[in-house]
Amino acid sequence: MSENLYAYADGGVTAPAGFMAAGVSAGIKKSGRRDVALIVSGDACASAAVFTMSSMAAPPVVVSREHISDGRLRAIVVNAGNANACTGERGMADARAMAVATAGLIGCEATDVLVASTGVIGVPMPMSLVLAGIEKAAGELDYLAGEDAAEAIMTTDTFMKTTGAALEIDGVKYTVGGMAKGSGMIQPNMATMLAFITTDAPLSSAACDAALRTAVARTFNRITVDSDTSTNDMCTLMASGVAGGELIEAGDARYAPVAAAIEHVCGELARMVVRDGEGATKLITVTVTGATSEPDAEAAAFAIANSPLVKTAIFGADANWGRVAMAIGKSSATVDPARVRIHFAGILTCDGGTAVPFSEEAAAVALAADNVEIAVDLGLGDGEATVWTCDLSYEYVKINGEYRS
Amino acid sequence: MSENLYAYADGGVTAPAGFMAAGVSAGIKKSGRRDVALIVSGDACASAAVFTMSSMAAPPVVVSREHISDGRLRAIVVNAGNANACTGERGMADARAMAVATAGLIGCEATDVLVASTGVIGVPMPMSLVLAGIEKAAGELDYLAGEDAAEAIMTTDTFMKTTGAALEIDGVKYTVGGMAKGSGMIQPNMATMLAFITTDAPLSSAACDAALRTAVARTFNRITVDSDTSTNDMCTLMASGVAGGELIEAGDARYAPVAAAIEHVCGELARMVVRDGEGATKLITVTVTGATSEPDAEAAAFAIANSPLVKTAIFGADANWGRVAMAIGKSSATVDPARVRIHFAGILTCDGGTAVPFSEEAAAVALAADNVEIAVDLGLGDGEATVWTCDLSYEYVKINGEYRS
Repeated sequence: MSENLYAYADGGVTAPAGFMAAGVSAGIKKSGRRDVALIVSGDACASAAVFTMSSMAAPPVVVSREHISDGRLRAIVVNAGNANACTGERGMADARAMAVATAGLIGCEATDVLVASTGVIGVPMPMSLVLAGIEKAAGELDYLAGEDAAEAIMTTDTFMKTTGAALEIDGVKYTVGGMAKGSGMIQPNMATMLAFITTDAPLSSAACDAALRTAVARTFNRITVDSDTSTNDMCTLMASGVAGGELIEAGDARYAPVAAAIEHVCGELARMVVRDGEGATKLITVTVTGATSEPDAEAAAFAIANSPLVKTAIFGADANWGRVAMAIGKSSATVDPARVRIHFAGILTCDGGTAVPFSEEAAAVALAADNVEIAVDLGLGDGEATVWTCDLSYEYVKINGEYRS
Repeated sequence: MSENLYAYADGGVTAPAGFMAAGVSAGIKKSGRRDVALIVSGDACASAAVFTMSSMAAPPVVVSREHISDGRLRAIVVNAGNANACTGERGMADARAMAVATAGLIGCEATDVLVASTGVIGVPMPMSLVLAGIEKAAGELDYLAGEDAAEAIMTTDTFMKTTGAALEIDGVKYTVGGMAKGSGMIQPNMATMLAFITTDAPLSSAACDAALRTAVARTFNRITVDSDTSTNDMCTLMASGVAGGELIEAGDARYAPVAAAIEHVCGELARMVVRDGEGATKLITVTVTGATSEPDAEAAAFAIANSPLVKTAIFGADANWGRVAMAIGKSSATVDPARVRIHFAGILTCDGGTAVPFSEEAAAVALAADNVEIAVDLGLGDGEATVWTCDLSYEYVKINGEYRS
């Protein structure tokens, strides 16, 4: 893994040179917390975005797909507290109005503004609040306000999610920053709920797109909190180029290290989203090796990661690895039971498809940790995949039984 | 629906003529409750069975697949408390030994005995207890003991599940009886955890197979408690023929009403399994109409029924229908958002993909009921499907965090 290859960069989306941000309270959240965020580049710059595959995609997703089509963005406007989903023609008009208002305030085309919303589904947007919030945010744009912006996109999140990484290539320092929000309706299918990545590396639009798609496939698209895919999922990458140097295309020697740093930032944010999954007490890493293909490994890993019986067992600190065997069995992956080997919380519990005696005391110690690893070797080929999830707790039920109330 | 077409028949699997049963305590369950069941026909008779599609199928499933291959059974032996799954060669030998012991006690071939097990995965069977239990059960076989047998197959079930139906065709009375167990690891894929259906109608083996497969596809294969598919799922049909009359083949005029009664019994049992789903407080009926095909309708219905966000909203009596829209969106079904209409607990909440104002008071009343209906019209074609599920409660987490402990 690439965890420690990079210098940490503070400030989230404003860590890279060339980006300002803001996060203000507009009164959309009943709590009065910050709920409108802006991310603005000095100039329109090479950008890419991936969106939810949901067939019920929300208006901001529909509008943003149009606006990113030329591979350039100047700004991103985000609100929390209302998803602007299942809002029909009015929702489309509201999403466009958010882009127009932002463009007017910072001086650019509306099509250079990407729009994102998160919150409750099926409620019309309180546009007077939203538009006043955008104006307020435009007045507070700052090169150090990445964390304000990250705070403004939180809903049921218990902590803000920002990270950054710095690397040097041929004497030029490049920085990547990012912010994301969870923490429910999370089995992203192209991007997590909302994630915004910035870099000052001079990536071309095509290089942005390639780097983002590769990173997302291995990070945000490999996490699940609750198996539910949002109507508003979105992940973007903006490359200001302010660090200097010639344009980086996907084939260049400088592309791979920058793309790896982007994947590193996406991976950190994705794991933060899971660790803050609604009601989560533990981060669970599920690794499947020995599959006949990578899609098979991913299918088996997701079957384990999404099984409520596996997730409740880990919440209860019960080394009930039989539920892992069950989950493999229900997945679409090719399986030969006689070759299955399961490590549960680091302990070999099943070999050749059969129970192996293990110490319940050792299991209790392993399950007391914040991180639990489940490793399955299907013993058939070299396909492998890692998926991150969290446990399923009483608190998850409480949060989601009461969400709208 | 066919709910009230049939006279209720008491006694579960012993309601039809020609079947004896027993349910005894063998000490496999730590609680000392009944845990070994027998169902025995007077003679080997036409039978059919469907089994889990899990690639991690347990030894009793593997052995029973062999034994049903000739379309005839004399007896079924079942134990609760241990699933005999992930038990390798020893598990295979234990499953065979259960058939051999039963055959010896009642006087038939071991291949005429079907073997079923349910309980914890990955623990070797306590065979001395099991074999003593089978001997005890054989000594207590009785034409009135259907409920003892139903009680003996319970694990986390809170009530026993038996039902029966009687009908008359051309002056001959036919009876169908059945028993089943839930109540977790339930998204059957060919059959529910364990369900045993009997009839005294003179069905052929081929007619048994056709009737059972049709009934299961529309009942047990359309329920989900937790989206998890067991390693031990099994559903059987035995037809003693004791009611008399000529052999009924699938093409006969008498076939359809008998098959409908079998489907009725399977449907009743399937809904009992869901109502008793682990921690369930409500039965949820999800109906999708207007899909481009029946598989599309089923996919959308299962996406709704398995969504933890939908299930927790109903537990919390929150008319959060946006989560239904989300679930449709993540399914593989073809969807045009502008045509989607959603009734949540009988209340129109979304039309043309857009929120419709509704009374929260009326919603609170509707959500206080034991039965909640979610109806989605995709407005595209005539594909439709109904899936039954339950809500997701604190108690579900408690039961499954502590199961092995």
